Amino acid sequence: MGEISCSTEPINGVLSRSSSSPPPSGYRKSCWYEEEIEENLRWCFALNSILHTGSTQYQEIALFDTKPFGKALVIDGKLQSAEVDEFVYHECLVHPPLLNHPNPKAVFIMGGGEGSTAREILKHTTVDKVVMCDIDEEVVEFCKEYLVVNTEAFNDPRLDVIINDARAELEKRKEEKFDVIVGDLADPIEGGPCYKLYTKSFYESTVKPRLSQGGIFVTQAGPAGIFSHAEVYTCIYNTLRQVFKYSPLEISCEEMDLRIKQRVEGENKYLDGTTFSSVSTLNKVVRNSLFNETHVYTEGAARFIYGHGKNEL
Amino acid sequence: MGEISCSTEPINGVLSRSSSSPPPSGYRKSCWYEEEIEENLRWCFALNSILHTGSTQYQEIALFDTKPFGKALVIDGKLQSAEVDEFVYHECLVHPPLLNHPNPKAVFIMGGGEGSTAREILKHTTVDKVVMCDIDEEVVEFCKEYLVVNTEAFNDPRLDVIINDARAELEKRKEEKFDVIVGDLADPIEGGPCYKLYTKSFYESTVKPRLSQGGIFVTQAGPAGIFSHAEVYTCIYNTLRQVFKYSPLEISCEEMDLRIKQRVEGENKYLDGTTFSSVSTLNKVVRNSLFNETHVYTEGAARFIYGHGKNEL
Amino acid sequence: MGEISCSTEPINGVLSRSSSSPPPSGYRKSCWYEEEIEENLRWCFALNSILHTGSTQYQEIALFDTKPFGKALVIDGKLQSAEVDEFVYHECLVHPPLLNHPNPKAVFIMGGGEGSTAREILKHTTVDKVVMCDIDEEVVEFCKEYLVVNTEAFNDPRLDVIINDARAELEKRKEEKFDVIVGDLADPIEGGPCYKLYTKSFYESTVKPRLSQGGIFVTQAGPAGIFSHAEVYTCIYNTLRQVFKYSPLEISCEEMDLRIKQRVEGENKYLDGTTFSSVSTLNKVVRNSLFNETHVYTEGAARFIYGHGKNEL
Amino acid sequence: MGEISCSTEPINGVLSRSSSSPPPSGYRKSCWYEEEIEENLRWCFALNSILHTGSTQYQEIALFDTKPFGKALVIDGKLQSAEVDEFVYHECLVHPPLLNHPNPKAVFIMGGGEGSTAREILKHTTVDKVVMCDIDEEVVEFCKEYLVVNTEAFNDPRLDVIINDARAELEKRKEEKFDVIVGDLADPIEGGPCYKLYTKSFYESTVKPRLSQGGIFVTQAGPAGIFSHAEVYTCIYNTLRQVFKYSPLEISCEEMDLRIKQRVEGENKYLDGTTFSSVSTLNKVVRNSLFNETHVYTEGAARFIYGHGKNEL
Repeated sequence: MGEISCSTEPINGVLSRSSSSPPPSGYRKSCWYEEEIEENLRWCFALNSILHTGSTQYQEIALFDTKPFGKALVIDGKLQSAEVDEFVYHECLVHPPLLNHPNPKAVFIMGGGEGSTAREILKHTTVDKVVMCDIDEEVVEFCKEYLVVNTEAFNDPRLDVIINDARAELEKRKEEKFDVIVGDLADPIEGGPCYKLYTKSFYESTVKPRLSQGGIFVTQAGPAGIFSHAEVYTCIYNTLRQVFKYSPLEISCEEMDLRIKQRVEGENKYLDGTTFSSVSTLNKVVRNSLFNETHVYTEGAARFIYGHGKNEL
Repeated sequence: MGEISCSTEPINGVLSRSSSSPPPSGYRKSCWYEEEIEENLRWCFALNSILHTGSTQYQEIALFDTKPFGKALVIDGKLQSAEVDEFVYHECLVHPPLLNHPNPKAVFIMGGGEGSTAREILKHTTVDKVVMCDIDEEVVEFCKEYLVVNTEAFNDPRLDVIINDARAELEKRKEEKFDVIVGDLADPIEGGPCYKLYTKSFYESTVKPRLSQGGIFVTQAGPAGIFSHAEVYTCIYNTLRQVFKYSPLEISCEEMDLRIKQRVEGENKYLDGTTFSSVSTLNKVVRNSLFNETHVYTEGAARFIYGHGKNEL
Repeated sequence: MGEISCSTEPINGVLSRSSSSPPPSGYRKSCWYEEEIEENLRWCFALNSILHTGSTQYQEIALFDTKPFGKALVIDGKLQSAEVDEFVYHECLVHPPLLNHPNPKAVFIMGGGEGSTAREILKHTTVDKVVMCDIDEEVVEFCKEYLVVNTEAFNDPRLDVIINDARAELEKRKEEKFDVIVGDLADPIEGGPCYKLYTKSFYESTVKPRLSQGGIFVTQAGPAGIFSHAEVYTCIYNTLRQVFKYSPLEISCEEMDLRIKQRVEGENKYLDGTTFSSVSTLNKVVRNSLFNETHVYTEGAARFIYGHGKNEL
Repeated sequence: MGEISCSTEPINGVLSRSSSSPPPSGYRKSCWYEEEIEENLRWCFALNSILHTGSTQYQEIALFDTKPFGKALVIDGKLQSAEVDEFVYHECLVHPPLLNHPNPKAVFIMGGGEGSTAREILKHTTVDKVVMCDIDEEVVEFCKEYLVVNTEAFNDPRLDVIINDARAELEKRKEEKFDVIVGDLADPIEGGPCYKLYTKSFYESTVKPRLSQGGIFVTQAGPAGIFSHAEVYTCIYNTLRQVFKYSPLEISCEEMDLRIKQRVEGENKYLDGTTFSSVSTLNKVVRNSLFNETHVYTEGAARFIYGHGKNEL
């Protein structure tokens, strides 16, 4: 059957398509995934096939083969990551903290079930241990199965994949320390499993004690667009500031490029020193919002992006 | 089908969904099939999965598992048939001609690859031979595989499935006669494979000679709605009238009910004598259009419904 | 209202479009109205303009100029009536009861704010008084303004337009009797204003006492499709049967055609005797459902079609 | 125009909505504008009303009142600018070239009919003459009417609005020189009016000769996203490089902030020195593409973004 049907196996000889037939069109652009970004805004992308859908204890999950973006992971109705451009997010999440650390050896990933964060971390030759702790076994399993770009990472002996709540896991590992802890979680939505991992108490009682001397914590913190940064981004930033010492970026553009060359296997597609100087310099609107933010994220005073989790009341 | 959600069986322990979990929602209602009925009119139905898509020599084909209609067959972007209500179309296509014939034994189906027309015909105890001739082997194969409601029919020894152009097949069978010939073709669209099977010359030179004495020809003839009947329906009717003797319905409501009881196995869901008297009595708008139609369908003067076939120039 | 309604006048000379310019396309087919028919089924039609939108005490209302259907009235998110085919519904609602009555003079319309039901009634030369009682003044006003096909009816001196709840109005008119009472209401939806006008107590205590000797009550009763008839149609039918004597259609096809000729001005587009014999003969599925229905519609045991009214809790 | 545009005035007393009524919902989120970004990707935003639609000699144009973005200008089916965030684009287009010039007095805008580019330029106290030359009078007129944020700019005596093709206008003004010329054109699409204003010959023969000594030319150059930059952006950049001397940004972050304070009235919302250093530092992907681009934009070798202009063959 090959490329466009849902099966990974030919059903039988009769159905196999001649390789010389023209690319089909018609109905193919008529299957769509529609995501409600906000109540009054949607986007829709055409599908080749539905690779997997499921409802786990925690989340609604799906893996689509989309026409514009390749394979795309959707959790609780929100696009998390897509094959064609996931490198942008994952390079930016992983390399800056690891490169700012003098010699990162042990890394802990909160979430990250897709495997791409682990893949980027494992490119660092200094790293000898990565613990990836995701709550949802089904996500991990089908990403392992379908996302061939991460196969090598999933098979790397330095990687330890744990199915558990990141908080419980970090609390259990009382004697361990990590040089870098990476929060690769879904955005906080009502009814979803992640919002408790953006709170001050979690950062203070659970994350910080697990960092080694000079250790670095980094987390994705939701959308940071010209308006969307007001949803959760500024509030998470302000919460981090209460707990962690602010770490000015101590290395220059040139030093970052040098360390990439020395420590990272292969070539980054997106991130280098110059890219980092651009993406880490915020515009006036967002800078003002960060400056004015006073809200601290707690379980009782959480904020959410637009969406609906499985366990929403 | 394999390990994706298209299977009706649990695939393996890791991925199988607990039977106690609530029905998933969220993303699941966010996969849609969208059909452009006209340039300014669409309808969209939610998908559970894409069971099959393909591009054959003749057509773009797809089988979806839809949320509102069950399994649905789409050819060249147009919904042909859906599990929940296909009985309406197929009972109305098949039973009236067979019941109006005194003793139908041999039946020829032009098209009908889905298998439902054969299923209805094979319910007639008088019938001892059904030839179903569809041009598209892939359609026949996946309908045989997925449409369990037609499995028994596909396995009936009275049924002979032929993959061929219906015109070529009828012309080849020079010595054979059929008591009923049924046209179960897709609507004529530009670039599609069917429009030549709605022409006067086809009816005259190919169909009529294959009917036995007292034989009946019936064909689906496109949409017959308050406006849509003007697309192809009246013109096909007028073309038939040039070639075939008009056969007034010779049997009463009661006689139809009696013959159903005597000759048809099982119980019809939709069609009985009363239903037939209603659906065969046309409204004033359509009657006027039929009365005023002068166009005869020929290859050089074809008409089409809205849509785009694979081989459209 | 101001900002979102539309003027019927050119705003100024500069903006007027040359009459020789080609019909615009592009963006114009990109404005759509989308109606959720059920949770998993939608249809979408392209808009030329939004003529009026508003939120009254009772309902959300809108009048669109649509590309496929001309002007279309939408109440509580559901398409009620469209310019191109409203004659089908209104002819079928009005003429059968009036033609079955020997000499209808006084007619009461519950609802009907659009004006089309009044228009059809006023074609009957026997009629000398029509009371149209709609709860929503805004609907009546913009239909009067925009639906030019009903202008003559709205100006007919035999028509009395009342803004009131139909129940309250009928109860107030204690001494009056009507030869025909027509229910031209929106389908019952949760939170909408109409569902109380489909109940047994309303029919019994309010409607029946206002019918003159030999008077006829007719009501629209929701969708009657192969599946949708189970939503409210069978239940309303069963409720009517508890209250009103069943009136077999006493006149033949030919007699109906004769009375149309004698009593109805102009020519019906859709309804004649033959059409009526077809549309009033139900198919086996619906007949079975009517036969088996036991539910009686009361305020405490109401049924609804899919949708959301303004005052839904 | 008449019937399909919208008045800003209440039509009459009857229709005006009580100010105490709740904001309408229901149908209101059911009117959508749908833009096809690529063949397999769309986005849709909910509409309050269609303020204006038209088809001019050059373009299909529309002004919508959208729910998520306020008023939005759409040309040839593509969203050009929206009330809530147009300041980002316009501040970034205008202020960098004017601030890099020591004393900009005369400015020419190619396109810019919306008025926002003029508004930003007119904030510069050094400027004493702005010529805005747009080909489409209808766009200019309805923007003047509806975009109140630009009213003051349209009335500024320093502004001269010309309806003409920018090329023709620049060629006509043989004796004039401009300190800054701003290209505020729609993206080049097939069949649209703008693509000839992105060519080498236009830059060389028409634009460059009209720049005064030390004059600066700036142009919008299409989307610059991680993939979309390959459509036209790199090619326009490479074309500019053939014609204009590369002007390194000679002023520092601090100097830019100082000049903003000295020369620009009011406060920028988005652009300051820090923002500029970020947005003008490109990521690795885009830098590599710019470095490798060899195509030069000419009329015979044009490139286009996805879309369809009115005069597409």
